[in-house]
Amino acid sequence: MRQSQLFTRTRKEAPKDEIAKNAQLLIRGGFIHKEMAGAYSFLPLGLRVFKNIERVIREEMNAIGGQEITLTALQTPSLWKKSGRWSDDAIDVWFKTLLKDGGELGLGTTHEEPLTALMTEYVSSYKDLPRYVYQFQTKFRNELRAKSGIMRTREFVMKDLYSFSKDENEFRDFYEKCAGAYLRIFKRVGLGDSTFRTFASGGSFSKYSDEFQAICDAGEDTIYISRERNIAVNKEVYNDEVLADLGLKKEELEEKKAIEVGNIFPLGTRFSEALGLSYKDEGGKSKPVVMGSYGIGPGRLMGTVVEVLSDEKGIVWPKEIAPFQVHMISITGGNNDVVAEADRLYELMKENGIDVLYDDRDARAGEKFADGELLGIPTRIVVSEKTMSEGGVEVSSRQNGGTSLVSESSIVEHIKK
Amino acid sequence: MRQSQLFTRTRKEAPKDEIAKNAQLLIRGGFIHKEMAGAYSFLPLGLRVFKNIERVIREEMNAIGGQEITLTALQTPSLWKKSGRWSDDAIDVWFKTLLKDGGELGLGTTHEEPLTALMTEYVSSYKDLPRYVYQFQTKFRNELRAKSGIMRTREFVMKDLYSFSKDENEFRDFYEKCAGAYLRIFKRVGLGDSTFRTFASGGSFSKYSDEFQAICDAGEDTIYISRERNIAVNKEVYNDEVLADLGLKKEELEEKKAIEVGNIFPLGTRFSEALGLSYKDEGGKSKPVVMGSYGIGPGRLMGTVVEVLSDEKGIVWPKEIAPFQVHMISITGGNNDVVAEADRLYELMKENGIDVLYDDRDARAGEKFADGELLGIPTRIVVSEKTMSEGGVEVSSRQNGGTSLVSESSIVEHIKK
Repeated sequence: MRQSQLFTRTRKEAPKDEIAKNAQLLIRGGFIHKEMAGAYSFLPLGLRVFKNIERVIREEMNAIGGQEITLTALQTPSLWKKSGRWSDDAIDVWFKTLLKDGGELGLGTTHEEPLTALMTEYVSSYKDLPRYVYQFQTKFRNELRAKSGIMRTREFVMKDLYSFSKDENEFRDFYEKCAGAYLRIFKRVGLGDSTFRTFASGGSFSKYSDEFQAICDAGEDTIYISRERNIAVNKEVYNDEVLADLGLKKEELEEKKAIEVGNIFPLGTRFSEALGLSYKDEGGKSKPVVMGSYGIGPGRLMGTVVEVLSDEKGIVWPKEIAPFQVHMISITGGNNDVVAEADRLYELMKENGIDVLYDDRDARAGEKFADGELLGIPTRIVVSEKTMSEGGVEVSSRQNGGTSLVSESSIVEHIKK
Repeated sequence: MRQSQLFTRTRKEAPKDEIAKNAQLLIRGGFIHKEMAGAYSFLPLGLRVFKNIERVIREEMNAIGGQEITLTALQTPSLWKKSGRWSDDAIDVWFKTLLKDGGELGLGTTHEEPLTALMTEYVSSYKDLPRYVYQFQTKFRNELRAKSGIMRTREFVMKDLYSFSKDENEFRDFYEKCAGAYLRIFKRVGLGDSTFRTFASGGSFSKYSDEFQAICDAGEDTIYISRERNIAVNKEVYNDEVLADLGLKKEELEEKKAIEVGNIFPLGTRFSEALGLSYKDEGGKSKPVVMGSYGIGPGRLMGTVVEVLSDEKGIVWPKEIAPFQVHMISITGGNNDVVAEADRLYELMKENGIDVLYDDRDARAGEKFADGELLGIPTRIVVSEKTMSEGGVEVSSRQNGGTSLVSESSIVEHIKK
């Protein structure tokens, strides 16, 4: 799209009340807008990144057999009373509200209860299992503190998948398959090198759960990583018993701050028993379904990418999630031949399916370059009198700064390779 | 996908408390699930339809220059107090909730206030206008009655676009352009013949607004249509003065029940003045921005399609929004050659980019056919001993029942044409 038409623009300074680096850069770039503490809107550039992350996650969830649905945010108390989680003691981040015609409702912080209840209508026999169901759905959490930009908010989209299996073995098979899918997701969004599968507390559900923690100084968690084994241990379970369980020695572990970018969680029969989700096995015996939950927040992932990969000049988007593939900057100096050539290349790239942000604004070269660095689109193309006299355009990489002159006739091929 | 893997299944009866035809059919087909009165989840088949409708709307909004964003559901009172709409007297469907750290929040029923406030950060000069900004975002409305299935709910996604223009002329140009886009949307989702642009009250904002009303006995509105002029008048403004304004005579109008499937609304400077959205014109003079709002609910559209186009056997999805293009049913009678041939055709169609629901279940032919009619996928393919002996497969149309034998070698070509 033409940058002159984009309704957002960059700004030099972030709002003073915004202390998180991810929010500072994303607000300065016009990717997001702060509505209040812990609630951000996604503007055109930000929504493009968000949707790319969502697409990566969706592809990986579909590849392991996930079936996509969307549950409601409004929650009726009856289901949550069955599991004992309606009270604010059980879930301390409920937002609750009143129906005009009487009765209280909650805004979903997670969806084990409604989905388990829903599955009772579709699961009755061992033939109906296993099933893997997921959604991208807006969660509401009444957080006391929300100071981490888009990494911890009061309203955010979560990809939450729930697995329904006949027994522990079938559950574990999928659990490991999903762990693999999660590692592929973090690699594709650019966090592969910094993300570790991390042993964490299983809470009231099981001995352990698994978190995926991305090393980052802005993180709220502390983990101990073993680079050799490519795993880590969350501080909350960092004790001699757990280390012995995992065959890890204190001296081989590094302490790091980290951001939890995903988690996978054995639920056992906690919810299936509370809500009556059972099946008849091959012998006709009724058994509770064994469940697991698997969460990733695309917005938190986006914030983490900004925290981990940005540099002093701005954001550096990995190719797969960048808002555009190419940022083409024209430096016209009032020369209409340059305008015509840039317009031509813009149309040519669009026709060839290349997503281009075309900085056609009437602005100084320095301003355009600085904006380009802040916005962090992977490939920059500069069209100017100088590049035209040299018979091409200047192509450079946001990630490593590498620059080359590419002839106009081979630009599409160059970008696509 | 293989129907044996789909976690939902059809049911013979709709829930007794569900009186709306759209919800009855959609629940029976496993498209949606009722969470409570006025709140429905979308299951895999329903989400596919929903996303297809969303895609159609998005394409048409982008084509007229719309820029997509996502605002938050959580709303802070300050903005709504400026416009005078925080009180329940002004908006009688607010859901409100309390923040743990103090203060009240609302759940957005519409988004004029936050978007107008946001635009003050990006609009200062005539050069920044016009701009068209839209979202697909979940609205919450505390409706007293919710008995129309997915056509009137307490939680639903709305496509709401807002236009920001320099003056009335620029606003009107876009308003008419958007009216054209809306008519294209209704045509593409299969409601072209039954939908009329309808004059309605402008409320407190302007003399008239425009609704798009689809004729349907289940509708909540009454309209008077002129088939000759292809327009209609809402009962609420059906009086001599309005008819004279429009050059319509009572005797040429038919009274019909109808469903409001979209509306476009002049907002004038109501919100720009309240929230301080102004621009400097070419002479340096400050002027308020002229606004409009443009809404379509994809879920209501989906419900309306079911109300209007279904028949006694079930749903009839138009091609562009159907959950799958093809429903392939195998009638194997235990013959492995039929299984192998159906499996082969399934893979072949998938490889060729055809979305197929493959009914590979071990079920009676009659059950499979009845399910096929209920689910309403446009093209049915039957593979059986009989069709194989005749050298092909049976292809039939859900819409008109027309059936033909197509050779296996030309099936992909036949579907794609």
